Amino acid sequence: MSVREILEVHPQPSSLDREALLRCVETCFDCAATCVSCADASLGEKDVQELIRCIRLSLDCADACEATGRIVARQTAVDLLVVGAMIEACAVACRVCREECERHAAHHQHCALTAAICLRCEQACDDLLAAIG
Amino acid sequence: MSVREILEVHPQPSSLDREALLRCVETCFDCAATCVSCADASLGEKDVQELIRCIRLSLDCADACEATGRIVARQTAVDLLVVGAMIEACAVACRVCREECERHAAHHQHCALTAAICLRCEQACDDLLAAIG
Amino acid sequence: MSVREILEVHPQPSSLDREALLRCVETCFDCAATCVSCADASLGEKDVQELIRCIRLSLDCADACEATGRIVARQTAVDLLVVGAMIEACAVACRVCREECERHAAHHQHCALTAAICLRCEQACDDLLAAIG
Amino acid sequence: MSVREILEVHPQPSSLDREALLRCVETCFDCAATCVSCADASLGEKDVQELIRCIRLSLDCADACEATGRIVARQTAVDLLVVGAMIEACAVACRVCREECERHAAHHQHCALTAAICLRCEQACDDLLAAIG
Repeated sequence: MSVREILEVHPQPSSLDREALLRCVETCFDCAATCVSCADASLGEKDVQELIRCIRLSLDCADACEATGRIVARQTAVDLLVVGAMIEACAVACRVCREECERHAAHHQHCALTAAICLRCEQACDDLLAAIG
Repeated sequence: MSVREILEVHPQPSSLDREALLRCVETCFDCAATCVSCADASLGEKDVQELIRCIRLSLDCADACEATGRIVARQTAVDLLVVGAMIEACAVACRVCREECERHAAHHQHCALTAAICLRCEQACDDLLAAIG
Repeated sequence: MSVREILEVHPQPSSLDREALLRCVETCFDCAATCVSCADASLGEKDVQELIRCIRLSLDCADACEATGRIVARQTAVDLLVVGAMIEACAVACRVCREECERHAAHHQHCALTAAICLRCEQACDDLLAAIG
Repeated sequence: MSVREILEVHPQPSSLDREALLRCVETCFDCAATCVSCADASLGEKDVQELIRCIRLSLDCADACEATGRIVARQTAVDLLVVGAMIEACAVACRVCREECERHAAHHQHCALTAAICLRCEQACDDLLAAIG
């Protein structure tokens, strides 16, 4: 993604661990797009009635990841309280969405794929949170 | 806002306190729009150089409020862990943005207005968080 | 909404008709929140299978309105080509969503409410488009 | 990005050209993240006063691309009028943002990078528009 290249030439890079930050930004945006798409795929399934909670949590996860990706990507005048609170909330949204997706992973490949990216995003948020200290 | 009327006829209202929920949803969306507008007004000020942190925090607050408004508005198959984590993060984004806006409130009326709605949104998030328990 | 007050004290108000602009911004944000909520209410209905297209179009309309509300709210260094193209697309998203909601309005009050706000938003976009010329 | 894999296992793929669709979705989300980041990098530059229009157009482009990426990614019950109108608006936002970024490309590498992804996104939107017919 091009955002990585922008962050590498940013005039005011934050003091946060560069690699942890980049991985968090990239997985947040990737997870947001994936969750939008998984909610839509679930909406197109014959057993949509079984997937109501999965759709709802994917929509939540998409919104949380998108906002978090935008906030973490910003380097100018970073406020660590805001960044920390958002990545903590994002990790929760990813975990809860992943757990529900895993329940449908055997029947729906898109849920298996979404569970995998949610796990990566949760870990990237946790890693950045640890780097903030 | 029409969203209040939708929530009043929702087929699966969550168990959350109705009035606290509605106030949180409405102030989140109002605060998001206001912060988008305040960041833009600050960008148009002659002393923009003094307002860099204010712009950045308004952009963060807009994104946090928008995501939180969407997540809290959803009633079907609510997950209280996700809702709780998001309103907690949103309250932090509102508080930090408000504190910065207050520093510019004497010189820029849009910052004074934004500080006021951020305070309302922070309180609405705190109230809903208390209602979740 | 507070965004109206911000726009009234903006340091660089655009040359666009003030009242048409405010109505467009306010209805876009209102319609976005309403569509998020209507998609969620439909997802909670027993006849969700009949509401798939309605949910999908409400999600689209929410995203189009939110982006358009943000773009139209910005007054600093307005580009009328961008504003015009977005409000034109937003009007289409509102019209198509409204037509689908109207088909379910007799059975679901939230669809009737959403059809009404979509109509107001479509008209507000058309009015601003006419004001741009 | 994982969204490509989801789209490949979607239960109701739209009739749109698969490769044109995937490229449009991926570049929209990539361009959105990049524009968020470029606006922030510009906000951190010493010559921010010269970059006001660039920041504003990057914020617009980010919002247009994000909404368009979400709408185009959805395959269930596609409405081509909505998709067509949004990718047309997105192409305009990308073109206008790119032209402004190009004016600053010699002095700011992040503007050069953003101009390049805006061009790719504009072309991906145009290609999908041509595929819709």
